[in-house]
Order: sequence, then structure tokens, then C-alpha cells
Amino acid sequence: MRDTFHDELDAITQTLVDMTMLVKQATKDATTALLTADLPLAEKVIAQDDLIDDMQHELDSRTMLLLATQQPVASDLRVLVTSLRMSADLERMGDMAHHISKLARMRYPATAVPPEASLTIEEMGRVAGLIIDKLAKIIKSRDLEDSKQLATDDDEMDKLHRKLIQSLISKDWPHGAESAIDLTLLGRYYERSADHAVSISRRVYFLVTGKYLQENA
Amino acid sequence: MRDTFHDELDAITQTLVDMTMLVKQATKDATTALLTADLPLAEKVIAQDDLIDDMQHELDSRTMLLLATQQPVASDLRVLVTSLRMSADLERMGDMAHHISKLARMRYPATAVPPEASLTIEEMGRVAGLIIDKLAKIIKSRDLEDSKQLATDDDEMDKLHRKLIQSLISKDWPHGAESAIDLTLLGRYYERSADHAVSISRRVYFLVTGKYLQENA
Repeated sequence: MRDTFHDELDAITQTLVDMTMLVKQATKDATTALLTADLPLAEKVIAQDDLIDDMQHELDSRTMLLLATQQPVASDLRVLVTSLRMSADLERMGDMAHHISKLARMRYPATAVPPEASLTIEEMGRVAGLIIDKLAKIIKSRDLEDSKQLATDDDEMDKLHRKLIQSLISKDWPHGAESAIDLTLLGRYYERSADHAVSISRRVYFLVTGKYLQENA
Repeated sequence: MRDTFHDELDAITQTLVDMTMLVKQATKDATTALLTADLPLAEKVIAQDDLIDDMQHELDSRTMLLLATQQPVASDLRVLVTSLRMSADLERMGDMAHHISKLARMRYPATAVPPEASLTIEEMGRVAGLIIDKLAKIIKSRDLEDSKQLATDDDEMDKLHRKLIQSLISKDWPHGAESAIDLTLLGRYYERSADHAVSISRRVYFLVTGKYLQENA
């Protein structure tokens, strides 16, 4: 039988998974809002970002309380410290969805993404969803192989990002600087979201092993 | 007389200040390298980013050890938890200087910043330096008024960022999409660096009061 403290640690992990699922939905909705100029959906993502922020604060308070009252060591301590960092990364991933939605809203009723780039952005949204799905599983399972693998999916995102930038600087980009700026920022938002996911998966590695997984800056 | 544990807490704060000064130098050098196409200086910032990363890992290990062995509560606990988060923000600020330097290197022997934008970028570099200087003081003094004030300097950075974007989308921007993309990213790097500084100053508020300072997302 588990004691209350370990039940509380499990509950913290579960909250991280719940937060990840919220971020996934926000990212999915943001991409749809962006590609279809869906203003109500963009507004929804923007409004719901507060929810993710509140969830982070609530989770961090619980984590701090356990740190203060339970004096955890070894892997229990790593669960709590890692939770503080994961929650910060997840909150930033929520911000990325928020930024994407704000760009969708700013350009409404037009779409921020011209036809030449919409397939690439759609693909970036798809890869982001895939990565966040895997991330939720990794947070729950703490599987080290899966956690290392996530970097490979991130390579896919980086490839799409380069493709996007390449299309913007090609001679026949017909949509001018404003559109190029929008897409540069959008590309960066998707790429950063995936980077945060990789960073979280590295923290899982640390959580399990107590060692840092080598980063490729 | 102070006990060893509290000396160690002070040493952690001092390491955060040292890290901040490294980030300041990196940001200053990155801006110079960018504006003057100084390749050796860009290379130096790129190489030294590892130093900042190593410093973060070393600091985090010490913090974790104190969490595990000292079972701190109340403000001592907040010093340690806040240190983990500040070190992550500082590491990201180092990454921003690293990104700026990589862009400088990529465009060498040309400069990534055309004359029309160089004053604004120079100004962004100056404000970044000012913010990081104040940040080092705030980490050391834990002054709540100064910590709230930092958001005002960040407003200055946001204003410069908007000015930069505005110049890119003006009809007479003569430098094409690639240059607009470079400057969009550069603007974002400076703006994000300042955001991280504000985020750290908010953590000082939490460290002192145990309460979260309201964020403006």
C-alpha cells in the first residue's frame, strides 16, 4: 500500500499530464484558428491560457508544500523539483498557442498564412500535436527510450521550420514583408513549443536517473 | 554569526549574480558582434554559452543537494526553489545572446543589420544591458520596488521591438524578405531576453513575499 505522500506525488504527475493535454488542445485549436481564420476559436485559446497559468500556480503551490512538509530525498525530491520545471515549460508551451492565436486574431478576417505556406504550417501543427501526445505518455510512463526519442520528432519540426523560412526567402515569395514577419514568428512559436517538449523529456531522464541528458544547443 | 547552511544560501545567490554578469557580457558582445560584423567576437559568445550552461548545472546540483540535506522551509526553501527557476531563465538569456551571435556569424562578412535598423538594434542592446544590470542588483538586494520597476524598462524594450517591426513593414523597406526575417528574429531575441529578466524579478517578489506578482501575458 502506498502512503499519502506518494499518492500526492502521483497526483502531481497526473496534474502535469492534465496540463499537457490542455496544452495539446490549445495548440491544436490555435493551428485550426490560424489556418481557417476562425476568430471564436482563436478567442477561446486566448481566454483559456489563463487556465493553464492558474494550473501552473496551483501545481507549484502543492509542490512547494510537499517540499516544505515532507523533506523528500533522492527520487522523490527529483519528482518535485522536476515538476516545478516541467510546469514552467508547459506554461510556455501554452503561451506559444496563445501567441499563435493572437496572430490569427490580429489578421482576421484575413488569414495570417497565405496558401503557399499553409501546408507547412498545417504540418508543423500536426507534428506539434504528435510531440505533445508522446510527451504526455512520457511524463506518465517515465520511459527513458521514449524520452530520448522525442528529439527525433523535434528534428522533424526543425526541418519544417527550415522549409518555411526557405520559402519566405525564395525569389518568388509574393506576399511581402509583413507576411514574412508573421510566418517567421509563427515558425518560431511552433519550433519553441517543440523545444520545450524536448526539454521536458530531458527532465524525465534526470528524474529517473539523477543525471542530465546531454543537450544539443 | 551565520551557520554554514545560510552561507551556502548566500553563495547560491552570489552565483546567480555571477551568472547574470556573464549573461550581460554575452549580450553586450553579441550586440557588438552583430552591429560591426565582428566574427571573432561572435565566435567567443557562441563558445562561452557552454560556460553559462555548465554554471547552471553546477548551481542546480548545489541547490538540489541543499534541498535534500537541509530540509529547508519557508523563505530558505523559497531561495532554493527560486534559484532553480532563475538559473533556467538566465540560461535562456544566455541562449538569446548565443542566437544573436549565430546570426551575426551566419551573415558574416556582411552585417545582418542594415543601416536603417542599426540604431534601433543598438538601442535594444543598450536597454538589454540596462535591464540585466538592474537585474543583478535586484537578485542581490531583493528590493521589491526595484523588482516591480523592471517591468517599466521592459516596456521600453517592447516599444523598440514594435518600432523595429514597423520599419520592416513600411513600404520603403528596401532589403527584402531575408533581412526582414533576420530582424524579426533578432527583435524577438532581445525582447525574450528582457522578458526572462522580468520573469526573474517576479521570482524575487515571490522569494521575499511567498506570493506571486500578477503577470501581464
